[in-house]
Amino acid sequence: MTNTGDSALKARAAKVIPGGMYGHQSVKLMPPETPQFFTRAEGAYLWDADGKRYIDFMCGYGPNLFGYGDAEIDAAYAAQMQEIDTATAPAPIMVDLAEAMTGMVAHADWAIFCKNGTDATSMALMVARAQTGKAKVLVAKGAYHGAAAWATPLPAGTTPEDRANLIHFTYNDTASLEAAVAEAGDDLAAIMASPFKHDVVVDQELPDPAYSKRARELCDASGALLIIDDVRGGFRIARECSWAPLGVQPDLSCWGKAIANGHPISALLGSVHTADAAASIYVTGSFWFSAAPMAASLKTLQRIRETDYLEHTIRLGTRLREGLAAIADDAGVALSQTGPVQMPLIMVNGADGKRDLDASSAFAGAMIARGVYFHPFHNMFFNAAMTDADVDFALEAARTAMGALEPV
Amino acid sequence: MTNTGDSALKARAAKVIPGGMYGHQSVKLMPPETPQFFTRAEGAYLWDADGKRYIDFMCGYGPNLFGYGDAEIDAAYAAQMQEIDTATAPAPIMVDLAEAMTGMVAHADWAIFCKNGTDATSMALMVARAQTGKAKVLVAKGAYHGAAAWATPLPAGTTPEDRANLIHFTYNDTASLEAAVAEAGDDLAAIMASPFKHDVVVDQELPDPAYSKRARELCDASGALLIIDDVRGGFRIARECSWAPLGVQPDLSCWGKAIANGHPISALLGSVHTADAAASIYVTGSFWFSAAPMAASLKTLQRIRETDYLEHTIRLGTRLREGLAAIADDAGVALSQTGPVQMPLIMVNGADGKRDLDASSAFAGAMIARGVYFHPFHNMFFNAAMTDADVDFALEAARTAMGALEPV
Repeated sequence: MTNTGDSALKARAAKVIPGGMYGHQSVKLMPPETPQFFTRAEGAYLWDADGKRYIDFMCGYGPNLFGYGDAEIDAAYAAQMQEIDTATAPAPIMVDLAEAMTGMVAHADWAIFCKNGTDATSMALMVARAQTGKAKVLVAKGAYHGAAAWATPLPAGTTPEDRANLIHFTYNDTASLEAAVAEAGDDLAAIMASPFKHDVVVDQELPDPAYSKRARELCDASGALLIIDDVRGGFRIARECSWAPLGVQPDLSCWGKAIANGHPISALLGSVHTADAAASIYVTGSFWFSAAPMAASLKTLQRIRETDYLEHTIRLGTRLREGLAAIADDAGVALSQTGPVQMPLIMVNGADGKRDLDASSAFAGAMIARGVYFHPFHNMFFNAAMTDADVDFALEAARTAMGALEPV
Repeated sequence: MTNTGDSALKARAAKVIPGGMYGHQSVKLMPPETPQFFTRAEGAYLWDADGKRYIDFMCGYGPNLFGYGDAEIDAAYAAQMQEIDTATAPAPIMVDLAEAMTGMVAHADWAIFCKNGTDATSMALMVARAQTGKAKVLVAKGAYHGAAAWATPLPAGTTPEDRANLIHFTYNDTASLEAAVAEAGDDLAAIMASPFKHDVVVDQELPDPAYSKRARELCDASGALLIIDDVRGGFRIARECSWAPLGVQPDLSCWGKAIANGHPISALLGSVHTADAAASIYVTGSFWFSAAPMAASLKTLQRIRETDYLEHTIRLGTRLREGLAAIADDAGVALSQTGPVQMPLIMVNGADGKRDLDASSAFAGAMIARGVYFHPFHNMFFNAAMTDADVDFALEAARTAMGALEPV
């Protein structure tokens, strides 16, 4: 056994953490090769409790955009922590950050900072309801918008009332969206949309521009607000709100994950015509005004504006996608690669041509065993600290991993 | 004008933050002397954008327990940040922290870490509903349990469904509690209680032991869970859950604010018989597994166990209460001081003998003008970095501040 360190930690965790671990960082549904704990992070790499290194294609499920432990961003955090962090009122850097965010995101005129992505999506619903005086919110079937009772993918512990005002539609299906709007009648508060379809287990889909534009039109016609949930995709698709390249601007956008390169901060941004509604709701949190994550975010935003991180991750993502496709062809493995190259979902097809969770898990597990942290059913991420050598390492691992899989 | 720095920041904030500021750190309802921003924090003190120093009796609305910028706790944060912080899986220190918390809180056998106090209270409802299969939750009228749609004190942006499963009772009123239990019928999931009544504007009340014991009995009789919302009071009343000194143990307790001395982490703790329910719900957050706040919390918990911080804050709180009472008597000011001495609510009575918000605001404003940050309608806090000299300074400020008030 080489994973005795991780096993010992899991045994201790089982005694003091429900189910041994909770939420998206539980490895219960991951391949058996997956460590539950990491002891060190640097750049593109993680090390487990047994000293094994992994190139991490999950990037903390999104927060890692410029590499773990980025010296410049972490120094900004530490310096601000020395001056003032969590206090009785915010520091001036909160204004700097609100100015920076609204300066970068065209639709945005105001910012509310918070901690969880779920804070931002939940507040977006409140702003939309305060703005419109209406209750119904449209969300795509299977889309993840957080883990509060109204949004969490599992119904345990929720009540029917928690979701009574949600109406579901099919992503990228304009007719379905129109039917959902009709179902809401005169009670439509908002349409909430992911920047692209990044649900687990099923193929990712980029947004059809016609669908995106129709969502905007339907909101304009009814006075409902268009919300983009950019918590996961924000600044990984564009240096702007993710639908800006399509020419579609929302009224509200939700941000988190990567905006401070892993330091805890999220944000709801809004257009000027929603500012009064935003000011009318009472939302807050013990650490929402903390200055140190804001300093880290300000530095991260500067790097987003001033470096080629986005083009770099797209270039590496393209190399991985093309390289994997060629290796899969050689090995007779039917690989499914969907979504943006820099946020890929990589699954393995079964004999029926459909995505096969067992086969995907076997492949991801074989990659993890070779020191490349792949996920079998959740989109992955690139970061700016990754190099061509890291992609080469991953491709070489894939070559031997696929050789060990059953051909279809 | 001596507050030109703060005024300039407020003018900028008004353009990019809804209402100029949101949530509990907005100074819109505070005396006009109150700065909206602070630029430096150290020990017991804050400095505003105009260089003025304040002894801060708000302690960040709770998080500051051992002084701002505590060297040892912040060093623990910084050291952990160097190793690993937000990553693709938690670090071993998460297990250490869960063991430490459950080791200190008698009823607790498991821990879920999160970011906001509201995360902990919202999850407590989910665990109670998963455990019981029932929906109704009893909360005291006027009690603050967070700012999610089900809990926020202002209804703007919420729907009737958000609160459809809440039933209200009067704090410390056993008959009212029994009536609320009866109203829930066979659908009672939980009773949620503050450790003491710490609502804004009205007198604080310590819990009547008979009421606390009755809450436990009512839960035992029905299978409902007893939840203590210790987010604000936790570790400021006891080195344990705040009802432990009364001999009453809850099934679930909610923690946050001070458990990492201002670093962003909160927690839901539970008894072993609720562990399966807790494992059945899907709850998570982008930064819930971040290791650096856990390192800060572990160090904070050690300080809680090993120092006399609690006795120190009680001693200073007693000195302030007694000193203020004597000064008020001399000045002919009718002062109301309620709640635990280390978490006091200090208000001024009007001619009718009732708490007068205008008079309270005038007094707090006069204190703030003198460099002592008092709050006119929210409980205040002491921290372990405060000294007798700080209390003396506050008392001297109170002497001249009260001299300037209208006698009643």
